[in-house]
Amino acid sequence: MNINQNYLNLKDNYLFAEIARKVKEFKAANPDKDIIRLGIGDVTLPLAPVVVDAMKNAAIEMGDAKTFRGYDDNQGYDFLKSSVAGYYAKKGVSIDENEIFICDGAKSDTANILDIFGADNAVVIPDPVYPVYADTNIMVGREASFIDGNIGNTFLPMPDTNVKFDIVYLCSPNNPTGAVYNKEQLKIWVDYANSIDAIILFDSAYEAYVCDDNLPTSIFQIEGAKKCAIEFCSLSKTAGFTGTRCGYTIVPQSLVRNEVGLNKLWRRRQGTKFNGVSYIVQRGAEAVFSEEGQNQTKEGIAYYMQNAKIISDALSKLGIWYSGGKNSPYIWLKCPNGLSSWEFFDLLLTKANVVGTPGAGFGANGEGFFRLTSFGDKDNIIEAMKRITDILK
Amino acid sequence: MNINQNYLNLKDNYLFAEIARKVKEFKAANPDKDIIRLGIGDVTLPLAPVVVDAMKNAAIEMGDAKTFRGYDDNQGYDFLKSSVAGYYAKKGVSIDENEIFICDGAKSDTANILDIFGADNAVVIPDPVYPVYADTNIMVGREASFIDGNIGNTFLPMPDTNVKFDIVYLCSPNNPTGAVYNKEQLKIWVDYANSIDAIILFDSAYEAYVCDDNLPTSIFQIEGAKKCAIEFCSLSKTAGFTGTRCGYTIVPQSLVRNEVGLNKLWRRRQGTKFNGVSYIVQRGAEAVFSEEGQNQTKEGIAYYMQNAKIISDALSKLGIWYSGGKNSPYIWLKCPNGLSSWEFFDLLLTKANVVGTPGAGFGANGEGFFRLTSFGDKDNIIEAMKRITDILK
Repeated sequence: MNINQNYLNLKDNYLFAEIARKVKEFKAANPDKDIIRLGIGDVTLPLAPVVVDAMKNAAIEMGDAKTFRGYDDNQGYDFLKSSVAGYYAKKGVSIDENEIFICDGAKSDTANILDIFGADNAVVIPDPVYPVYADTNIMVGREASFIDGNIGNTFLPMPDTNVKFDIVYLCSPNNPTGAVYNKEQLKIWVDYANSIDAIILFDSAYEAYVCDDNLPTSIFQIEGAKKCAIEFCSLSKTAGFTGTRCGYTIVPQSLVRNEVGLNKLWRRRQGTKFNGVSYIVQRGAEAVFSEEGQNQTKEGIAYYMQNAKIISDALSKLGIWYSGGKNSPYIWLKCPNGLSSWEFFDLLLTKANVVGTPGAGFGANGEGFFRLTSFGDKDNIIEAMKRITDILK
Repeated sequence: MNINQNYLNLKDNYLFAEIARKVKEFKAANPDKDIIRLGIGDVTLPLAPVVVDAMKNAAIEMGDAKTFRGYDDNQGYDFLKSSVAGYYAKKGVSIDENEIFICDGAKSDTANILDIFGADNAVVIPDPVYPVYADTNIMVGREASFIDGNIGNTFLPMPDTNVKFDIVYLCSPNNPTGAVYNKEQLKIWVDYANSIDAIILFDSAYEAYVCDDNLPTSIFQIEGAKKCAIEFCSLSKTAGFTGTRCGYTIVPQSLVRNEVGLNKLWRRRQGTKFNGVSYIVQRGAEAVFSEEGQNQTKEGIAYYMQNAKIISDALSKLGIWYSGGKNSPYIWLKCPNGLSSWEFFDLLLTKANVVGTPGAGFGANGEGFFRLTSFGDKDNIIEAMKRITDILK
């Protein structure tokens, strides 16, 4: 009996535990200080009324023999897949319903998708990065290569055409940097992936935050992407579903490798290892895509984006370099005065009583950077940026 | 770029597609016939009122900023883990809350658990078998060995002490055979697993159907099991959650291999690749474990067990050998007159207009056997058994 020894190569992620420890210590020593959290990676606004109503009604249906639903054997109910297809149609993207897989969130599927790929594939991951991409590769014994995000490329790394690979992760709008690829940049990625037979795993979990109509919100808005890309999206940040759990993954029918359709492979994987998302949640998700749902959830996003503007305006005035904040709930800033990520964390905590997230927690290229998020209360954010301005100006 | 070539070794499971095709053909040729389905593997009774109310209330909470919940970072909310621990306490089993992992169903976790084990482990699977056990091993390139369930061992295979292995799947009450291990039998399994350092993956998804107080409903009722077993359970069949999705997996803290705690490994796996179960569903699940919830859900199980008795009584009268039906919703019968599984299927369909499931679909040892289920309407089941009796007596 052996455990999966690859797990022993995982580094413990102490980032949020270490933040919590430092905050706790500071509070104990300074019980009168009012601490504001701008490090939170979770939404705070409640679900839209139309979503709540849909889930209440679905719960009632489940209590009635005439409308009760058992297993969802088809990777999502048709009503929700139809809503998702309609959402893509508005983006100018034609997606067939059997290309849509309803899931419990983008995290699960970006992790589980590796099941359908061979162990010998070369994987490329941008740094800084959402830790799940790297960790799930380590878990299967695969050593990924990293490509550099930095100020020089505004944290939007482009392919190095001297380097061949089989799989690349792209996340746009990016967590943690808030950077967003434009269509020309994504076209270069798609063309290169097609030229080397590679797959792009495209994480679009923050697509609803894109306000600039010229920026892409789906990789499938790029010509040729249906031959090289899988897209992962979620209602977590779009509609406050972090605790409600629903997402969707698009695997085009035209995506073929080794003469096998990846749509068929992923369907087999999900059919064998997953039993679908709760009917009640799927009805809530359907409501997000209704006209009323779109209006109500966009109000929430507008609130967060107003917060993001307060943060980024303050940083602009201070002359601090940052990315994000315009089409993303995240603001990724260069720590002033050459401070390291954790030195800046300590400075903000002790002098401004503001908590953020050290960029070093997102990879080597995050050192010297810092993430602020807009998922908080507006008045708190105004106060936090006033305090930060006071200590840095 | 290579796909996971192991997927090419999976056999397409045509069982239910073939059943559907045959039924469709028969209906087209005989539109006046009233077909009764006793092949259904899904529950049909609606959710208990207390569960519906809990989910409605939880949906309302999610619509209010004061009670909104985001990410569940702890593998299940404390309120539900506490309920599960209380349920085990009533079985005489002490489970710590940090040994409980809330999940979206037993299927997901019995499949995903393989992630934490090494590829070189020898795996043993009883035949006949729930297809997921075998398929998920094929997916990671592992060729499992089978142990025989048959009339001689009443479909309850015991360990062959000449054979060493690392992992064994046990499902009791069993799908598809309805057979239930007694405590003495499970003690032999536990002792043998401990003696060879093996892990028992114990699927107890049908434990709520055990009516005989002397039969075990958890592997952890067996001394020594916490050193060799992981238990998977679900509310799918207990409380009609097949479309609502909630289960739980117990990984004891004392379960250690290669000097590493499997609880810690599984927590890392789930924390990296899973984002928890919907808050709304977890509140519904909590309600199942309340006194009212237990009373209401037990009514549903009693209904199904009454159906099971109707089926098994009729088979007894016909002198047909069967297992299950007493502490299980499944009745596994030997096809009369030496018929093959599919020959008996055709006979029942064409002469009695009753649909069941050919045992051959569950493995080589299922040939010549047939599964009937009690998840139907009582009056239909009475009529179906009358028709079956008429053609077989």
